[in-house]
Amino acid sequence: MTRREPLAASALPRAAWRTTILVRFAHCDPAGIVYYARFFDMMNGAIEDWFAQSLGLDYHAFIGPRRIGLGYAKADADFFTPAIMGDRVTFAVLVDRIGGASLSLDLHAHRGETPVLSARLVMVTTSLDQHRSIPLPDDLRAAVHRYREACP
Amino acid sequence: MTRREPLAASALPRAAWRTTILVRFAHCDPAGIVYYARFFDMMNGAIEDWFAQSLGLDYHAFIGPRRIGLGYAKADADFFTPAIMGDRVTFAVLVDRIGGASLSLDLHAHRGETPVLSARLVMVTTSLDQHRSIPLPDDLRAAVHRYREACP
Amino acid sequence: MTRREPLAASALPRAAWRTTILVRFAHCDPAGIVYYARFFDMMNGAIEDWFAQSLGLDYHAFIGPRRIGLGYAKADADFFTPAIMGDRVTFAVLVDRIGGASLSLDLHAHRGETPVLSARLVMVTTSLDQHRSIPLPDDLRAAVHRYREACP
Amino acid sequence: MTRREPLAASALPRAAWRTTILVRFAHCDPAGIVYYARFFDMMNGAIEDWFAQSLGLDYHAFIGPRRIGLGYAKADADFFTPAIMGDRVTFAVLVDRIGGASLSLDLHAHRGETPVLSARLVMVTTSLDQHRSIPLPDDLRAAVHRYREACP
Repeated sequence: MTRREPLAASALPRAAWRTTILVRFAHCDPAGIVYYARFFDMMNGAIEDWFAQSLGLDYHAFIGPRRIGLGYAKADADFFTPAIMGDRVTFAVLVDRIGGASLSLDLHAHRGETPVLSARLVMVTTSLDQHRSIPLPDDLRAAVHRYREACP
Repeated sequence: MTRREPLAASALPRAAWRTTILVRFAHCDPAGIVYYARFFDMMNGAIEDWFAQSLGLDYHAFIGPRRIGLGYAKADADFFTPAIMGDRVTFAVLVDRIGGASLSLDLHAHRGETPVLSARLVMVTTSLDQHRSIPLPDDLRAAVHRYREACP
Repeated sequence: MTRREPLAASALPRAAWRTTILVRFAHCDPAGIVYYARFFDMMNGAIEDWFAQSLGLDYHAFIGPRRIGLGYAKADADFFTPAIMGDRVTFAVLVDRIGGASLSLDLHAHRGETPVLSARLVMVTTSLDQHRSIPLPDDLRAAVHRYREACP
Repeated sequence: MTRREPLAASALPRAAWRTTILVRFAHCDPAGIVYYARFFDMMNGAIEDWFAQSLGLDYHAFIGPRRIGLGYAKADADFFTPAIMGDRVTFAVLVDRIGGASLSLDLHAHRGETPVLSARLVMVTTSLDQHRSIPLPDDLRAAVHRYREACP
């Protein structure tokens, strides 16, 4: 199996946006650790907050009034260390690639200095009315370009 | 972004174990399609049923009395077509690689002939008491070897 | 606290529709038992299947093409016995009351003869376009009347 | 159906502990509103935070090292207004009754002044090793007594 090397927390760009998520009872499974599907759910929440807090864009307005889907064509995660109830896990978002109708994002999560996971999510912009992919909207494209310049 | 090519349903080994899952209201998001984290949840359910129905092993006894974790070190999915409420999606499981303390599994899901997703899940066997990886238990190793021979 | 008395499995009407759900790893929490929110999720799935298998109605067509919401105004459950991974829990659905724009349903779940939970769910029919309650559609009203006559 | 009257936000005790939760994409269903099972999940998260922030108790230490289950014997909610993506819903916790081995809690959620839901959750303390109910631990009993005095 080809696994990513974990990125040291110190290797993240200083300007990278971060959010810290408390691991809750409901995130965990009978093995006592975060259930892997819940990690993907957490990552979507992190992306939502990155839109709002870093890009200055309203994620929910895309899906709702603007009728633009922000679903994933690919989701690929390596899990390095289990997280347990009460842990605080910090997710950072980096832009890997800006495509015509897609956005490749890297997420790196740490508990303190310990790498928890690294993931790549490829978001595709779609018309929720016509059920086909559409070019990245201008405001989203401009915002991720600015973000990537700040966090190379 | 590097994406897998979808596998045609007809290209799956005849003997591959399959299970069909009905897409429910609760699997879907405000875009009306299966939420990606729910697909990972479905895949875990498919693996559980593959253990019971194909390998003849009790997944729940691993986690419970045997105290052996079956969590994932890697989960990597490509999503080809959205699935909506009421769809019936068939998941097939193939064995990619049998490691010393891990098992690399490929899942391919179709709605009829239409590819929905392909995923690779790397399962790692761990001691839930000692919180470290342990060799694949003999019964699991033997069963996946037999399965792989039947589904090359 | 006022709690319901559990209903003996033998006290259910013979004609009551039932479905059996396997308790999965992902339904359970770090206490090793089904997480209460997941029981509510299971109950929604049971209602979906009751629509299809017993009422002969397509739950998903209500939400989708017909744009009729089937959400709950009330959800009230008593939990009698925890359920663990691998348990098979059988849910039965009974009709408590048929209102003008609502449907009060009772669900009783057992593991073998052991009562697991009893719940009342009050479903309200709404227009998803106009965001207000609407009268029970005729096909739904007729089907639940027939069901209640068969399962008094 | 007997439904609770919603409690006006202004009728909550001033000292009641409150937490505000952002409604996310993943909380919502194809009807575009929070899925009812997710509301129960949110309420558990609110209880966890009430333990930590108001009672000064570590919810996760109960389940983990102390092996004390904090599951529910009853969960009963009335939903007054749907919540949609991007809403901020404020949950308040009140103590209804302190039993020998149980705790009856009332939660009231509002979006601004609009009542969203009211719920009663009856938490039962159990031994996770002996699988039976146990008296409320002294620290929990003392803390909820103090809280109830402050929020009559």
